[in-house]
Amino acid sequence: MKRTFTLILSLLPFLMIAQELKSPNENFKLKFTIEEGKPTYQLNLKNKEIIKPSTLGLELVDAEDLLGDFEIISTKNSTFDETWKPVWGETATIRNHYNELVVSLKQRQTERIMTIRFRLFNDGLGFRYEFPQQEKLSYFTVKEEKTQFAMAGDHKAWWIAGDYDTQEYDYTTSKLSEIRGLMDKAITSNVSQTPFSETGVQTALMMKSEDGIYINLHEAALTEYSAMHLELDDENMTFTSHLTPDAIGNKAYMQTPTQTPWRTVIASEKAGDILLSNITLNLNEPVAYEDVSWIKPVKYIGVWWEMITGKSSWAYADLPSVKLGETDYTKVESNGRHAANTDHVKKYIDFAAEHGFDQVLVEGWNEGWEDWFDKSKDYVFDFLTPYPDFDVEELRDYAKSKGVKLMMHHETSGSIRNYERHMDAAYQFMVDNNYNAVKSGYVGDIIPRGEHHYGQWAVNHYLYAVKKAGEYGVMVNAHEAVRPTGLRRTYPNLLANESARGTEYEAFGGNNVDHTTILPFTRQIGGPMDYTPGIFETDISKLNPNNGSRVRTTIARQLALYVTMYSPLQMAADLPEHYNQHLDAFQFIKEVPVDWSETLILEAEPGDFITYARKDKNSENWFVGRTNDEEKRTSNIKFDFLEKGKDYVATVYKDAKDAHWETNPKAYEIIKYKVNSKSKLSVDCVPGGGYAISIMEAEKGELKGLERL
Amino acid sequence: MKRTFTLILSLLPFLMIAQELKSPNENFKLKFTIEEGKPTYQLNLKNKEIIKPSTLGLELVDAEDLLGDFEIISTKNSTFDETWKPVWGETATIRNHYNELVVSLKQRQTERIMTIRFRLFNDGLGFRYEFPQQEKLSYFTVKEEKTQFAMAGDHKAWWIAGDYDTQEYDYTTSKLSEIRGLMDKAITSNVSQTPFSETGVQTALMMKSEDGIYINLHEAALTEYSAMHLELDDENMTFTSHLTPDAIGNKAYMQTPTQTPWRTVIASEKAGDILLSNITLNLNEPVAYEDVSWIKPVKYIGVWWEMITGKSSWAYADLPSVKLGETDYTKVESNGRHAANTDHVKKYIDFAAEHGFDQVLVEGWNEGWEDWFDKSKDYVFDFLTPYPDFDVEELRDYAKSKGVKLMMHHETSGSIRNYERHMDAAYQFMVDNNYNAVKSGYVGDIIPRGEHHYGQWAVNHYLYAVKKAGEYGVMVNAHEAVRPTGLRRTYPNLLANESARGTEYEAFGGNNVDHTTILPFTRQIGGPMDYTPGIFETDISKLNPNNGSRVRTTIARQLALYVTMYSPLQMAADLPEHYNQHLDAFQFIKEVPVDWSETLILEAEPGDFITYARKDKNSENWFVGRTNDEEKRTSNIKFDFLEKGKDYVATVYKDAKDAHWETNPKAYEIIKYKVNSKSKLSVDCVPGGGYAISIMEAEKGELKGLERL
Repeated sequence: MKRTFTLILSLLPFLMIAQELKSPNENFKLKFTIEEGKPTYQLNLKNKEIIKPSTLGLELVDAEDLLGDFEIISTKNSTFDETWKPVWGETATIRNHYNELVVSLKQRQTERIMTIRFRLFNDGLGFRYEFPQQEKLSYFTVKEEKTQFAMAGDHKAWWIAGDYDTQEYDYTTSKLSEIRGLMDKAITSNVSQTPFSETGVQTALMMKSEDGIYINLHEAALTEYSAMHLELDDENMTFTSHLTPDAIGNKAYMQTPTQTPWRTVIASEKAGDILLSNITLNLNEPVAYEDVSWIKPVKYIGVWWEMITGKSSWAYADLPSVKLGETDYTKVESNGRHAANTDHVKKYIDFAAEHGFDQVLVEGWNEGWEDWFDKSKDYVFDFLTPYPDFDVEELRDYAKSKGVKLMMHHETSGSIRNYERHMDAAYQFMVDNNYNAVKSGYVGDIIPRGEHHYGQWAVNHYLYAVKKAGEYGVMVNAHEAVRPTGLRRTYPNLLANESARGTEYEAFGGNNVDHTTILPFTRQIGGPMDYTPGIFETDISKLNPNNGSRVRTTIARQLALYVTMYSPLQMAADLPEHYNQHLDAFQFIKEVPVDWSETLILEAEPGDFITYARKDKNSENWFVGRTNDEEKRTSNIKFDFLEKGKDYVATVYKDAKDAHWETNPKAYEIIKYKVNSKSKLSVDCVPGGGYAISIMEAEKGELKGLERL
Repeated sequence: MKRTFTLILSLLPFLMIAQELKSPNENFKLKFTIEEGKPTYQLNLKNKEIIKPSTLGLELVDAEDLLGDFEIISTKNSTFDETWKPVWGETATIRNHYNELVVSLKQRQTERIMTIRFRLFNDGLGFRYEFPQQEKLSYFTVKEEKTQFAMAGDHKAWWIAGDYDTQEYDYTTSKLSEIRGLMDKAITSNVSQTPFSETGVQTALMMKSEDGIYINLHEAALTEYSAMHLELDDENMTFTSHLTPDAIGNKAYMQTPTQTPWRTVIASEKAGDILLSNITLNLNEPVAYEDVSWIKPVKYIGVWWEMITGKSSWAYADLPSVKLGETDYTKVESNGRHAANTDHVKKYIDFAAEHGFDQVLVEGWNEGWEDWFDKSKDYVFDFLTPYPDFDVEELRDYAKSKGVKLMMHHETSGSIRNYERHMDAAYQFMVDNNYNAVKSGYVGDIIPRGEHHYGQWAVNHYLYAVKKAGEYGVMVNAHEAVRPTGLRRTYPNLLANESARGTEYEAFGGNNVDHTTILPFTRQIGGPMDYTPGIFETDISKLNPNNGSRVRTTIARQLALYVTMYSPLQMAADLPEHYNQHLDAFQFIKEVPVDWSETLILEAEPGDFITYARKDKNSENWFVGRTNDEEKRTSNIKFDFLEKGKDYVATVYKDAKDAHWETNPKAYEIIKYKVNSKSKLSVDCVPGGGYAISIMEAEKGELKGLERL
């Protein structure tokens, strides 16, 4: 790793004029000024306005706001350039290269100091507020952060409604000016939701200007603060930060020295650059653990989709209400649909072992599922006590004998206190029974009541759970938690989150067909998503006659998602019997890696299509994935990323000509080609379709008889 | 123990008429009726109205209220008589003797069942709501409990303001009709307080009717519910229950089968009977622990009063703000006033050993006191890390060598989540370092913010802390927690609570002179109070020139409090050097037990005086204590409680003739007498005065030369 560091301390006489900062490649230019006492910044990309002059500051509770009356007391410029290696990721190395401007501000009357730190990368901007320890400012409570992002036009946006408790919405594509009119429709029902405004949207927010600039707003390193939403002033096309409140309406409790999370603006003329940006990771702290050898990417199957579709149940019995430690399950009749039973789980273990999966997730194994949901039940699970038909020891030993691990499931029902009370025992139980990864869930309203999923209280908890898991060598896949902001760099045992509308909604009525062409530009800017792809049987009524949902995809696209929806934790979510019907297509899921050394964007337009190429971290093999929206489109790609002069076997899994997500989702073709760095391919993608390609180093003889592309 | 149980199931034809229940001695009569669909009860004592017809029921959130449209579907009468032995207490045995009426009610439209269970004792009434498991009522949220207590007149009352967060108020004595006018004055400032109404008061509420009936309203067995206040309709002299809300205004979350705490009405023509009532204990469940051998009453001294008075500090350094794990105390300069340092604590240990105290409380031993208070600081203490000048191991060994234990101190600053996160480690730390009792504190507003000290959330926590302590063999003395409701019967490791204005306020300006003549009728109805008596130096400026407070007592009364303020955990709160100046008076504190086999009330009038006689649980010795209000009064007592025909040595510690709490508090006399069961004594008590008597079995020769009373 190389690392350079230079520092220039500006002198006071210069402070009266505007401060300027350029990105290392000089494409971005940031300007900082004090306008009538207000800290103000603007950002240009090659002379195009990305952020028009926008003010910075915070409103405080029971104290003078930190909004105006500021003067610059010092500035500091520096350059940083370092290349680091993530424990796992989309690339083997990441370059962290930025120019930094630190502006120290003093509020004249109150004599309080507030510092703003700007880091300008070649792909965009990060900045945050810092509050040094000082006599006049030890503790303060944030009423609202007032960070403006003034847009230069009525951009096209891919947005979901601002909400303190859920991100599980379909994306709406519209102009900024249309958000207000579309908000009602955008807010679909969810088991815990608190939308707050007619123009409030969530980050990461993806936009595109009329002159073709792609702009993404998000945040990095969200700890000890509440998650940021964006409130749009749709007359001026200006966003202002809107933090998630606590139970009494406050936004954050701060003690100096402290800082806010980073606010990020990623921008490029190329959509693919947004996907490749490492700003979010680079603004996070380096890994916090000395030993990371226990952290490993995971490919898994699970007893899950059969419950999501309604074919089976999490609950052991059909009872309206149970009490842990009081309800005697040995005297309760099973409902006959309980999936997490020993025999059934063994079949999943057998399948995992046969096909090389690392783990088997089992949901509904522990007592309490009869009334787990929507009851504001404090003591809802103990995370230790299995149902009578789930034999922990037997399954532990059986899985061990098959070389497979079980994945633990900790649904909390949002009852955070209860989870924390049982957390040590629950993680120890995992260690004792050979579990090293947990899927946690926060379905329903948060307890303590009045707190929200995205408030400072819950944000503190999620990280507590991850750090505590680290003490036990446990990896975490947290669902319904706050959307990620790159913390995986620091805590790489946080493998993935949900924090968006995942595949489960395909069984709850369906996701928009373009959903997976948007998620990488929005939700995944912050980090990996456990999207649970791999659904081969898209007609849900085949699993549950009462469920008319249709997964809006072709099988070929389901394969592509293992490449396009980056995660070090990937599920093959469908049932073993469905995979057994398509073992040829299933082969791609078996082969696709979950850790990469290189990542390229071959084609991308948010809402339309994305084509990724990624290189396996542990071999010379490449994998390509293409997800397509509801339009029929042709993808044209080059294989120039391959090592020159070398032949590979490319296996293309693509939609058949007459395939269609709605009418003919299972029609796919698998064709093998001989390819090298000069090869090109054109593939027709059907509505809701896509394709996947494995590109393997050719063994002797394998190339024989294959058509060269 | 004897135990009888009879059961009579009433038949439906009788249900249309009023249900009646009499106390075993037939002095109390309860009548239950349905009036226009509303459950209604009334209570008489020997034909005097204690509770006029009063309605019962609850308002619910998002559901039909449980207030009207009820019919009786069954009633059940039974009798219970059992004598049980508390682990520690005011008496060696307790008789639990009542007649019970259980009325099952059905709400016609909703078909929901609500049961009301009445238990009528010879000293009063207990009743509660019960909600059986039923199809139509599994979960519900209480908006407000609407239990009426209609008084028969404009009684005299000893009251403090209803408040969700503190009971640390001086009592006001007034007619009910005067409460509204006096409320403003009654609400003195407190570090966490939330008064809610102009006529809201707290329980236990003590009253006296114009015809001389003493009435006390409180509750028993408060678990999984929020604490009850009483809201007075001062036109009709009717109280209605007012529960403590949570952060979003709800009062309680319930899952059937469940019940509310018991509501209690203790009444008698004799004030002393109120003090002797065991209704609160009898309405609690029997002891929950199999082994109680580790639970032992405690007499202790502590490094505490010197901080309370401002002579010393809890904090090691004078810093405006610290961060645990970040602030390096080894590099911080001590403020020179830090009391919890090894050498200083050793002196306390020496004193404790010399005078036979069990334990030494040390507050301020752990990092974090510099900004512990009023900062809404989440991670405020870790309960593990000592200041650099407090050597845990050295003090552990030193205390052990002296046969003394240290008492742990866990101040939480109301940050409940933080305490629970560290609780297991903190208790384990105690076990490892020879601590078996903890004083816990909840100073300041509760975190999670919006929750209150007396709400269901916090109530759940306090019991969690006690039960968890039980797992480690730890006894608890919880300050600022909810006031007790007899849970010590079930969890006898909850030795004591504060939950009222204790001696500390004598150093914050003073308590009313009559305070200790009221507390046994109010706060202590629920259980023991760690009042921390034994202040010999009443002029606080002697400890801290900047503190002009005056402890409003004579020394003689301070001795009496060890008898009148019952607790199995008693502190000698003053500094060793002050006791060394009055070792003759201190002798009483050394001798007075903290566990009793018998308790008698010799004289009592709330707000004026109380004279207790108690017999040591472990000997034949008796101890008498008298606390006096601001009036000069003469106490006349008989010694007829002594074993007949036996002579004892009575040592009387009384105010000198010219003593006065304000002008001459240290003037006391100590006189020994020969007494037997025929003896009588008349003692003049000065304003703020009182007396204490130890009555010991006479050793050979001891009686020689003593005057016979």
